[in-house]
Amino acid sequence: MSNPYSNWEDTIVALATAHGVSAIGVVRLSGNKAIEIANDLFPSKDLRKEAANTLHVGFLKDGEKVLDEVVLSLFRAPRSYTGEDVIEISCHGSPFIQEQIINACIAHGSRLAKPGEFTQRAFLKGKLDLTQAEAVADLIASNTTASQQTALKNIRGGFSDVLKNLRDQLIRFSALIELELDFSQEDVEFADRSALEALIQRISVTVTQLLESFRLGNVIRNGVNVAIVGKPNAGKSTLLNTLLNENRAIVSEIAGTTRDTIEEIINIDGILFRLIDTAGIRESEDAIEIIGVEKSMEKMKSADIVLYLFDAFSETAGELEAAVHRLQEINSSYMLVGTKSDLSDQSELSEKFSGIDTLYLSAKTHHHIDLLKERLVDKVLQGKVNTESVIVTNARHYASLQQVASSLHDIQTGMDNRIPGDLLALDIRRCLHYLGEITGEVTNEDQLDYIFSKFCIGK
Amino acid sequence: MSNPYSNWEDTIVALATAHGVSAIGVVRLSGNKAIEIANDLFPSKDLRKEAANTLHVGFLKDGEKVLDEVVLSLFRAPRSYTGEDVIEISCHGSPFIQEQIINACIAHGSRLAKPGEFTQRAFLKGKLDLTQAEAVADLIASNTTASQQTALKNIRGGFSDVLKNLRDQLIRFSALIELELDFSQEDVEFADRSALEALIQRISVTVTQLLESFRLGNVIRNGVNVAIVGKPNAGKSTLLNTLLNENRAIVSEIAGTTRDTIEEIINIDGILFRLIDTAGIRESEDAIEIIGVEKSMEKMKSADIVLYLFDAFSETAGELEAAVHRLQEINSSYMLVGTKSDLSDQSELSEKFSGIDTLYLSAKTHHHIDLLKERLVDKVLQGKVNTESVIVTNARHYASLQQVASSLHDIQTGMDNRIPGDLLALDIRRCLHYLGEITGEVTNEDQLDYIFSKFCIGK
Repeated sequence: MSNPYSNWEDTIVALATAHGVSAIGVVRLSGNKAIEIANDLFPSKDLRKEAANTLHVGFLKDGEKVLDEVVLSLFRAPRSYTGEDVIEISCHGSPFIQEQIINACIAHGSRLAKPGEFTQRAFLKGKLDLTQAEAVADLIASNTTASQQTALKNIRGGFSDVLKNLRDQLIRFSALIELELDFSQEDVEFADRSALEALIQRISVTVTQLLESFRLGNVIRNGVNVAIVGKPNAGKSTLLNTLLNENRAIVSEIAGTTRDTIEEIINIDGILFRLIDTAGIRESEDAIEIIGVEKSMEKMKSADIVLYLFDAFSETAGELEAAVHRLQEINSSYMLVGTKSDLSDQSELSEKFSGIDTLYLSAKTHHHIDLLKERLVDKVLQGKVNTESVIVTNARHYASLQQVASSLHDIQTGMDNRIPGDLLALDIRRCLHYLGEITGEVTNEDQLDYIFSKFCIGK
Repeated sequence: MSNPYSNWEDTIVALATAHGVSAIGVVRLSGNKAIEIANDLFPSKDLRKEAANTLHVGFLKDGEKVLDEVVLSLFRAPRSYTGEDVIEISCHGSPFIQEQIINACIAHGSRLAKPGEFTQRAFLKGKLDLTQAEAVADLIASNTTASQQTALKNIRGGFSDVLKNLRDQLIRFSALIELELDFSQEDVEFADRSALEALIQRISVTVTQLLESFRLGNVIRNGVNVAIVGKPNAGKSTLLNTLLNENRAIVSEIAGTTRDTIEEIINIDGILFRLIDTAGIRESEDAIEIIGVEKSMEKMKSADIVLYLFDAFSETAGELEAAVHRLQEINSSYMLVGTKSDLSDQSELSEKFSGIDTLYLSAKTHHHIDLLKERLVDKVLQGKVNTESVIVTNARHYASLQQVASSLHDIQTGMDNRIPGDLLALDIRRCLHYLGEITGEVTNEDQLDYIFSKFCIGK
């Protein structure tokens, strides 16, 4: 691969651990001078003679000045994260000392790494493709099991393997069709049109699946907005509290989750649900009308799921049907939940609301609370996705996949209309371009810079 | 050494790096099951068969669930930080993933480490003495070159070596004197009283030096309070700004320095100076009177150094003498600084204020600004300390050294009065006790718990 970057032969250095006073911190050096620079600062051993994947304890010194007592991890190219020689300096967790070590590394011939530059080098050295590199950033940002597992799957190449394989097949056809152009006088067809059509179909199916998975991927990355609506006394706050209390321990473990007065976050089976208590916004004056408040309306429209709560004991079938009618107009992704089911007989309820798909629960007795959680998860996964599926979580991939889908459509239309080979070849090239852009086989300097600039420094 | 701790045979685990999203984080395991636990989570290799000081890359799995792709550092007892088997797991910098890894380590047989417990184990295993262990905490907290160098010196044992050596000599005398007690009927003296007296003298000199170094040690740890006083228009703010602007880059690099409206921090030669602009508190109504404001007065009294600024051009010798008189009453650690020296001839000034030790500077032309800094540093170091000196920075050591000094005084007085051997032996034992307490040769469970409880988790 050609190198679109200046300075990529520099040796780079950065703090790889979080900033702050702690037991230890790690400063990372990568590049062809990494071992030499570390060796200059580590007088007790000749690191240049040490084997790969070894640990070395000693004092780090800049000339006569002792900087710290450290443990060095030595990795040699190509068996390292970046594919270059890498030294990781595990030092004491003083920001002051870490800065001194970084400054000493700079003084001895390295430069400060840009955000994501270590991973960028891993990409440039072919250690990772672009989706894998992006999955590294996703993994670091992961805060649920689902986001962690999706990122790990992508790091292991699940996502790119599928696309690369299809792209390779398409490249073969592209070559054959371009070959036909050289013999255009003779009206030959090297490329078997029906086989090409079958391949286009296969790619289309995969791309459609991937595009569809994005909704879920987005949910896994960003959480699911659930608007809880219903009349006053339908039991919205009670249900919210029941869900929260059961999950309190899990919630508090998730660092950085924002919790304001109207949104609460719970984690069910590794998926984040953002519960929006519309009652918390403002109660309608007209308590009978479900949807009387403009803000609640907006929240309902933009929610991924609307949970409509009603008092199963006092609500009539007519009232519920009216509510369903309104809900369908506003957001078709809703669930009906009859509360206070402990006050009625279950069969009585089924009869009263027969024909309406409703879950009955009781926050008081905890009846069907687990079933509600299960249904929420099912609604997100929609029964389509199992843990082995490849899921698109990245907006960049989604945009490229849309371009792939569009070019596939053009290829198919072109073949249906038996357009000339040179035009067909153009459409195929466009499809190859966007497929390659996802995995990084086709790269664009600005785009790469943008992707890696969103990484942490030190990664 | 006997073990005063319960559960110290447990294998312990903790996050060793700072909390937060970052490129990498390190989870540390220590104890006799550390390698076994890591091995349970690391299916790609049998870590139990791997050599010490090696690195291993692979996926960390809890059963079937992939937790992360990690690099493991393997250390074997006794060649590790704690002196036990140690595994450091370098994982992705996601707090969520780090928590999962720690939980998996706990599920497989370790427990969460208490603050400082890794270093406590290093101490219990004899890898560090107590002053060295305490220096680790100081090193982590260090934010200037001076505090870093002092901590590093103490980690290397500079401090304890001196005391241990003197204590060993005193133990020999103690043994001889206690032997005399067995032969008390015979009135023999195994212990050469003049040699003992000479040793007591040597210990006294060292202890006095160490006690004296504490003032400097404290300054190195906590910074020097400098009250800037003077009449309005003496140039206080201008000088402050000049000092700050020159140091702005350095100041901003020191993480966590508190900067409110009346205190500014500058770093000169690795020592933190906290500049207190008393003018910032409130200007006296009576502008001629230097010290009119109560708060300024308090600041002046408690300051390590008082910088009295006067306008060298307009101040008369009589006024300055009056000011010096007042200063001597309030805080004898003062420096006189004549400002605006660019307005006068230098020899003129020397003549006008002859006999008064004054530094003339000009913030405008930067004349003698560096000299002022030099004088401030000299005033702190007082010419007594060079970088090779051992410095006491720890209040616990200071308290024990005071007890040592007091017992040395009692031994000396006892010998002068030729008190009986059994009483002398008691005084010597007291001295040995406090000397041993500093380095941890004499330990007390509560005290140890207190010392280590102030460490970070993971250290």
